[in-house]
Amino acid sequence: MVRPRMVLFGDSITEQSFRPGGWGAALADTYSRKADVVVRGYGGYNTRWALFLLHQIFPLVGIAPPLATTVFFGANDAALLGRTGERQHVPIAEYKENLKKIDCSKSMLIVLITPPPIDEDGRERFARSLYGEEARKLPERTNEMAGVYASQCIELAREMNIHCIDIWSKMQETAGWQKLYLSDGLHLTPEGNAVVHKEVVQTLRSVGLKAEEMPYDFPHHSRIDGSCPEKAFQ
Amino acid sequence: MVRPRMVLFGDSITEQSFRPGGWGAALADTYSRKADVVVRGYGGYNTRWALFLLHQIFPLVGIAPPLATTVFFGANDAALLGRTGERQHVPIAEYKENLKKIDCSKSMLIVLITPPPIDEDGRERFARSLYGEEARKLPERTNEMAGVYASQCIELAREMNIHCIDIWSKMQETAGWQKLYLSDGLHLTPEGNAVVHKEVVQTLRSVGLKAEEMPYDFPHHSRIDGSCPEKAFQ
Repeated sequence: MVRPRMVLFGDSITEQSFRPGGWGAALADTYSRKADVVVRGYGGYNTRWALFLLHQIFPLVGIAPPLATTVFFGANDAALLGRTGERQHVPIAEYKENLKKIDCSKSMLIVLITPPPIDEDGRERFARSLYGEEARKLPERTNEMAGVYASQCIELAREMNIHCIDIWSKMQETAGWQKLYLSDGLHLTPEGNAVVHKEVVQTLRSVGLKAEEMPYDFPHHSRIDGSCPEKAFQ
Repeated sequence: MVRPRMVLFGDSITEQSFRPGGWGAALADTYSRKADVVVRGYGGYNTRWALFLLHQIFPLVGIAPPLATTVFFGANDAALLGRTGERQHVPIAEYKENLKKIDCSKSMLIVLITPPPIDEDGRERFARSLYGEEARKLPERTNEMAGVYASQCIELAREMNIHCIDIWSKMQETAGWQKLYLSDGLHLTPEGNAVVHKEVVQTLRSVGLKAEEMPYDFPHHSRIDGSCPEKAFQ
C-alpha cells in the first residue's frame, strides 16, 4: 500500500518545523510508518503569494490528494502598513478570501491554524540584536493585529465548517507565553512547537486519524515468520 | 519545479530518525526547501525482508527516482544464531548479496551505511530493564559480529564503487562511544544521531549536493516584488 500524505502548508513557522524540537518532525514521528509528513513551508510568504503555489503543491491529477493539510498563514499578512514588513501585508478581507481559496484545494481534511500571538517586546529586542541602534522604533507587527487576523481565520472556518486551531488564543492562556513559546517574539521555541504539535494531533485524532488505529505500510516485523517471510508480504 | 526526494531506507535506526534529535529530521532541515526527506525505516527488518519492499518503495515507473538514498541495514542481520534475535539473523554472504540487490534500485546516488557498533553491556542492561531476572544471559548481538557485517558492507561499496559511511568505525573513534552514542547499546542517542547526520551531509556534499547551491522550489520571499508578485512566479 502507498503511505498517505499529510501536507504542512504555511510560512516560516511551517518551514522551520523540522528544526530541533519542531512540530513538523514531531508529527512525522507521531505518524511514523502510517503517513508521510510533507513540509511545504515558505518563510516570509503571505496568503497572496501562497496562491501562486497552490496548484503545484496540490496538483489535481497524478497523485492522490493528501489525507490532511495544515494551513498556517497570517503572521506575514498581518504585518503593518507603513512599517518595515509592509511589503508582506495583505488586507484582512483579502486574507480571508485567499484562505478560502487555499481551503478549496484538494485535500481530504483541512486544518486551519491561526497566526500565533506576537510578543512586541521580543520583536523589538530581536530587531535590536540584528540592527542595533538602526532598529525600527515602531513595531512591524502587533499582537492586537495578529488577533484580528486570527479572528478572521476562525470565522472562515466556522462559515466553511472546517477545523481550526486558534493558536493565537491557546498560547496566551499560559502565563509567560511571550518568552516560553516565542523565540524572537514571532517564531516558536521548542515549547511553542510542542503546543502546535499537541493541538494538531488532537484535531487529527478528533476526526479519526489515530496513529495506533492506522495500518502500517508494511507488516510489523513481529508478524514476519522467519522461516517463511513471503507469507507476510502477500 | 518538483522538489527532489531523498529516501532513507533502513531498520529501526532509520524509522526512529524523526524522534527528538533524530538524524532524519536534521537532514530534512538541512535540505529545507531543496529536497524532501522521505523516511522508509522498518524496525526489526533485515535485508532479506527489506527485499520484499524494494519495488514498492522504488517503483520503476510513475515517479522520478530519488536524488539520493541511504541504505542502513545490518544491525538485525547480525543478530546471533541461537539467541533471542535468531529470527532476524541473515548469514553474512546473503547480507552482502541482499545489499547488492538494494543498491541496484533506481536511485541517482546510493549511500551505504554500515551497522553501528554494539555496546553489549548496554544491551544487557536494557534487557534487564525490560525482563528483569528473565533477561537472556547471553548477548543477542556482539560488537565483533556487527563489525564483520560492517566490513562486508564496506567491501561491497568498494566493489560497486558506491559511497559508504563506516559508522561502526567512526563512532568507536570517540572515547565513551558506548554511552555517548548509544541509548540501549544499539539505538542512537541525540549525539549518535548527530554523528550520522554529519556523515551523511558530508557524503552528499562530496558529490555536489550542497544545500546552499541547490535551487529553492519556489522563489525566496525577498525576490518577490510586493507590487507585482506574479513576476517572481513566471
